Amino acid sequence: MKTNNDWSMLREPGNGHHGMVCSGTNCGADWSMPDAKPGSSISPLDPAAATPLYRQIYDRFRDAIASGVLKPGDRIPSARALTQELGLARGTIDVAYSLLAAEGYIQPRGQAGTIVTPDLKPRGPVASPRPRTDPALAPPSFRPDSILPFQMGLPALDAFPRKVWARLGARCVRAMQPGDMVHPAVYGLPELRSQIAAYLQVSRGIICSPAQIFVTSGYRHTIALISQALLKAGDRVWLEDPGYPPTRDVFGHLRIAAVPVPVDQDGMVVSDGIRRAPKARAAVVTPAHQSPLCVSLSLPRRWALLDWATRNESWVIEDDYDGEYRYVSRPLPALKSLDQEGRVLYAGTFSKVLFPGIRLAYLVVPEPQVERFEEISQAFAGGGPQLTQAIVTAFMAEGHFARHIQRMRKLYGERRDATAAALESVLGGAMPIDSQPGGMHLILRLRGGRSDRELVARMMKAGLYGEALTDWTMARDQASALLLNFTNIGSRRIAEDLGRRILGLL
Amino acid sequence: MKTNNDWSMLREPGNGHHGMVCSGTNCGADWSMPDAKPGSSISPLDPAAATPLYRQIYDRFRDAIASGVLKPGDRIPSARALTQELGLARGTIDVAYSLLAAEGYIQPRGQAGTIVTPDLKPRGPVASPRPRTDPALAPPSFRPDSILPFQMGLPALDAFPRKVWARLGARCVRAMQPGDMVHPAVYGLPELRSQIAAYLQVSRGIICSPAQIFVTSGYRHTIALISQALLKAGDRVWLEDPGYPPTRDVFGHLRIAAVPVPVDQDGMVVSDGIRRAPKARAAVVTPAHQSPLCVSLSLPRRWALLDWATRNESWVIEDDYDGEYRYVSRPLPALKSLDQEGRVLYAGTFSKVLFPGIRLAYLVVPEPQVERFEEISQAFAGGGPQLTQAIVTAFMAEGHFARHIQRMRKLYGERRDATAAALESVLGGAMPIDSQPGGMHLILRLRGGRSDRELVARMMKAGLYGEALTDWTMARDQASALLLNFTNIGSRRIAEDLGRRILGLL
Repeated sequence: MKTNNDWSMLREPGNGHHGMVCSGTNCGADWSMPDAKPGSSISPLDPAAATPLYRQIYDRFRDAIASGVLKPGDRIPSARALTQELGLARGTIDVAYSLLAAEGYIQPRGQAGTIVTPDLKPRGPVASPRPRTDPALAPPSFRPDSILPFQMGLPALDAFPRKVWARLGARCVRAMQPGDMVHPAVYGLPELRSQIAAYLQVSRGIICSPAQIFVTSGYRHTIALISQALLKAGDRVWLEDPGYPPTRDVFGHLRIAAVPVPVDQDGMVVSDGIRRAPKARAAVVTPAHQSPLCVSLSLPRRWALLDWATRNESWVIEDDYDGEYRYVSRPLPALKSLDQEGRVLYAGTFSKVLFPGIRLAYLVVPEPQVERFEEISQAFAGGGPQLTQAIVTAFMAEGHFARHIQRMRKLYGERRDATAAALESVLGGAMPIDSQPGGMHLILRLRGGRSDRELVARMMKAGLYGEALTDWTMARDQASALLLNFTNIGSRRIAEDLGRRILGLL
Repeated sequence: MKTNNDWSMLREPGNGHHGMVCSGTNCGADWSMPDAKPGSSISPLDPAAATPLYRQIYDRFRDAIASGVLKPGDRIPSARALTQELGLARGTIDVAYSLLAAEGYIQPRGQAGTIVTPDLKPRGPVASPRPRTDPALAPPSFRPDSILPFQMGLPALDAFPRKVWARLGARCVRAMQPGDMVHPAVYGLPELRSQIAAYLQVSRGIICSPAQIFVTSGYRHTIALISQALLKAGDRVWLEDPGYPPTRDVFGHLRIAAVPVPVDQDGMVVSDGIRRAPKARAAVVTPAHQSPLCVSLSLPRRWALLDWATRNESWVIEDDYDGEYRYVSRPLPALKSLDQEGRVLYAGTFSKVLFPGIRLAYLVVPEPQVERFEEISQAFAGGGPQLTQAIVTAFMAEGHFARHIQRMRKLYGERRDATAAALESVLGGAMPIDSQPGGMHLILRLRGGRSDRELVARMMKAGLYGEALTDWTMARDQASALLLNFTNIGSRRIAEDLGRRILGLL
């Protein structure tokens, strides 16, 4: 990459203040560059012009790039430096730069400064892929190249039926009528709630009516909604330890006290929760595949948990984020399907079965609580945009959803086996792999007191993603292990390459 | 409309329990109708079949409708009645019914029961217009027919550039790449934040960097986000009285105490706020057009408010929901544009300038608070779906947004004048109309101690929408008045028709 440290291009020769100097609209070639042609018509930026200052700056950069005065790879001054240079408000420069960045003209490179986009091509500002990692660091064989290898929480992005999605999306957006533009039903699009109810009955063994389903904009929103409706600051809640960190995070901000409850091979140790906080107001569990240990909550524990909740009038929050993805047998029915007493709040999400960027999740509430959740949803006006909900509804109604889940269950089983076998062959001696019935990631145990956090830090530097089990742990005595998502690892050969790179970092 | 009260169609002759009786997949014509052909092959619903029960029920209704056994307008049993009839779980019936309703086969009619959709046409489940009012009640000349006349909070739905929107939407949905499917930036799509920053500078006089902008899923979400970041339960907040009821509602659920502050011709009476609660943590104001009285906050009051906030380190929350819609002169700059000390949080929304169903709003926070809001947004994972944000970004980047606002300002000025003139001519004697510089609704004063709430109730029964000023009021001494949105009133003749209908209800 060519860099250009000569910022004098931004200063008018002999004039340190008004650096970007040209007049009218056709000023692209008139930059006060050292090599600008002598005698060119130059004048200061005009704060009184009809064109706002940010736009004048934006125009000059864009024109300079278009005319070749600034070349791909050239470094441009930092916003701070240009702010000082021009004596303008920082916000003005920031707006200009961010528009330029949004439209692809320039690229911020962190410590390395901001450069004119290398390999610049004309393109619109919208929905262009943004590489999350430097392509030079990622192995060329890794797909898709916009995410890091082993990045957690992602489904197989390459296997999503984007064409079907785009077709349905285009149809839905064209079908928008005035009636669809008014305030949406705050509990979610009625058609979507019906589709979800039908899906839950068939796939997760949950019998509920659409009125019990509340569409949310993600799992954290679901937890906030439950807290708003049923909990209050100061309440205590059992959380699995280790467990999904965002759950702690949300409760922490709501001033709800987390009680860590250990997890063993049968899932959350319910008796331990009862010993530690018998009067807790709620327990959050991941019964299908514990997050992150992937064990299933045993049937006796399920009964014990429901029994405790019923006796104490406490709530069980079932986080069923990937219940479908079990590879050794049929998916287990949801804990909710055993809930005769109406103590279980079921939190489902489209993040894992569709994609996380969709920001769409849902909550099933026991029938007697429906009114309370309607009240809270009205107050905070929940629900996502109609368009996304309409697309998901069509995707479900036409059978794509069920087909996609079936295909992914098969694909993930294959990718899991291939990735596990490859990593085992390369890393098995140093890092034995847990065997689990389901989930979307592998757990590699670190031996000999090695720090998972340090390994993860080295991996991130090398362009590899991993998470440290220690970071998912509240108590201090948890074993050291690496969590690696396998859903985007396309072949055994890729996994072996990646495994060798991890081996080099040990 | 034909109704059919003979529910015996659902019972097998001589068998009161398994009413819906047929076998296999081709059972549509085999309903146990009184007029079913004798000897037809019938068998009970099969709980053990691969096809779930709700689907079996759904299939039978659908087939019965398709084959003409059930005809458009026929009444079908209530879900409760059918639950008892079949001895199944209520949820099973609810799922079947809601799928049938979602796909347009049946229509719930409240007390009148559920009927097979009259004038049934094949159609998908998605994005079909849902009439919000009985067409028989609405005057035939009123457009669009999916909302009520005078419905508050709505822009002119008929004037929205739906074709442009659909074209951009289809392009954005087709352009989705794997990189766009991962977790979105929780503060909002960077390109959208840049567009908003540029828009605010040009149109509202606000200089801010994109990093100060947080995209939310609506005004209530914005208020909740501010409360989470800067307020705590027990804090006191000044609210305009009268004022937008949802603001009270959200704060109430967050246990933040509302201090009503009166509004006069110059907007919120700041001195009164200082007298009532000098140490309040925040004040919510609608400076451009007070909601609902449409007066503007005077410049002395703006300075007084900022001065109070600076001295007390309190926050001013500027709700600029319709700042663009001023008809007597140029829109006033936002209060935020005067904010030298970083005390103003600016709440903008796309609900009024695009449409409410979009569920997209934004917040500008003072620079020193950016980090705190980033932390809170991370915890609760704010932001809307990428797709909607991408469409809005394109809509703004290509100039449609600015053009649309210009067109609407002109159109609303015309519709406001026409509606006001028409209502004045019909109702002026009984209900004088306030003169206001902007906004999206008219205020009709009720004379002689008439109750605005009672009039609104009568209007709703007659299929007309209105809101009572009393319902926007916290203190008890507010005058009685009717709030009528004019943005969807397409002509003076329509407004006169509607005015005469109101006159008949006085």
